[in-house]
Amino acid sequence: MTYCVGLLLNDGFVLASDTRTNAGVDNVATFKKMHIWEWPAERVIALVAAGNLSITQSVISQLDENANAGSEQEETVRNVTTLFQAARLVGRTVGEVRNAVLSEGDQSSESFSVSFLLAGQIGNERPRLFQIYSEGNFIEATADTPFFQIGEHKYGKPILDRVVTPQMKLSQAVRVLMISFDSTIRSNLSVGLPIDLMVYRKDALSVELNRRIEVDDANFAEISAKWSDALRDAFAHLPDYRW
Amino acid sequence: MTYCVGLLLNDGFVLASDTRTNAGVDNVATFKKMHIWEWPAERVIALVAAGNLSITQSVISQLDENANAGSEQEETVRNVTTLFQAARLVGRTVGEVRNAVLSEGDQSSESFSVSFLLAGQIGNERPRLFQIYSEGNFIEATADTPFFQIGEHKYGKPILDRVVTPQMKLSQAVRVLMISFDSTIRSNLSVGLPIDLMVYRKDALSVELNRRIEVDDANFAEISAKWSDALRDAFAHLPDYRW
Repeated sequence: MTYCVGLLLNDGFVLASDTRTNAGVDNVATFKKMHIWEWPAERVIALVAAGNLSITQSVISQLDENANAGSEQEETVRNVTTLFQAARLVGRTVGEVRNAVLSEGDQSSESFSVSFLLAGQIGNERPRLFQIYSEGNFIEATADTPFFQIGEHKYGKPILDRVVTPQMKLSQAVRVLMISFDSTIRSNLSVGLPIDLMVYRKDALSVELNRRIEVDDANFAEISAKWSDALRDAFAHLPDYRW
Repeated sequence: MTYCVGLLLNDGFVLASDTRTNAGVDNVATFKKMHIWEWPAERVIALVAAGNLSITQSVISQLDENANAGSEQEETVRNVTTLFQAARLVGRTVGEVRNAVLSEGDQSSESFSVSFLLAGQIGNERPRLFQIYSEGNFIEATADTPFFQIGEHKYGKPILDRVVTPQMKLSQAVRVLMISFDSTIRSNLSVGLPIDLMVYRKDALSVELNRRIEVDDANFAEISAKWSDALRDAFAHLPDYRW
């Protein structure tokens, strides 16, 4: 499985994805699931992916190839004028890749399920965050629901539900992501370190942080350990249920 | 959906189940998913159920009817001599009910998926906890894994993973159950109050607590609110991830 989260804040956005893939528990590997296109002072577009790796990799390769080809007739992540157009482009590409795979082989479309989070800012447009489904359709994050999760999302959802608001600082958003990932990693073997983390500050039009949090990352370990301690401490000080 | 948890401790066991059932979000109802058989000074056997309600209700009715019939030839929850035998009995009954339903109608067995937690103490045997699957097979909780969850289990798992040990007091176990349910209820509409809660103290051979925690339960609301506050407070005092 996979776990990816995107938070859309007044100050920008934060994206994170784990890197574990598995085809059975004895076939585990590390793959980057985050791709960032950055043309400084002009646009930043980031995509994280969950689901069938052959499909998600093909979608990203296709988008990347088209962007680098520099075509002006064809829409690419290089030349779309809004992030909504970028989301439509990703959705179309998902459809094309799936159809190509399906027409070539097995028709059991279930195993080709994928999902994406797309975040970015293009020029003067505000930063935006989209979740794109297997069928190529998508939804956009709003102030009411400022975060999306894809993949193994349930373990890490309670803390996001309690804490996330659009008013959070980017540093707080990174902290809550760490906790959400930590909870998921502890409870589910199919999600694992390293984590790819990206931070984008509104109107910067360049990536503020693009870091791989490795297994031995001392800062992550510190947050994880202190969170565990704080939880146990909070638990110990709760009132009893009386009977 | 459903959420049920059982914790097996050195001091006894604690079981809890929510009461929400839904066939679509516009068809939500309240059903008790916990059944307790108690013959004081002799045996206490409790069963909580998740999955297809027609199957789980039939299994419980069948077990109950047989126990009350007072047959001595047939194995019932009234006369089995160990909890392992009780687990086998429940497993067999699941198989019989499923087969009866399947032979009568639709063969799409997937929608007849069920699972049970069985906990109890019979005479001098130690308290035991089993998880029983749709197929009628089962596993038993041990000191390494002292809790089982069935139904919508992921949201409420991280806190159990961090806190539960067999050395916990029963009052602490109830507290962690409250938190685990609270997290699940906040994140998932298909799980809801009231919660049925049962507490059994080792060697009592009678139920210590069998209570329905209603929507307006002040004690539950207090634990829930204080836990939210404690989490937000713990989050606010965590170190930042630095970049």
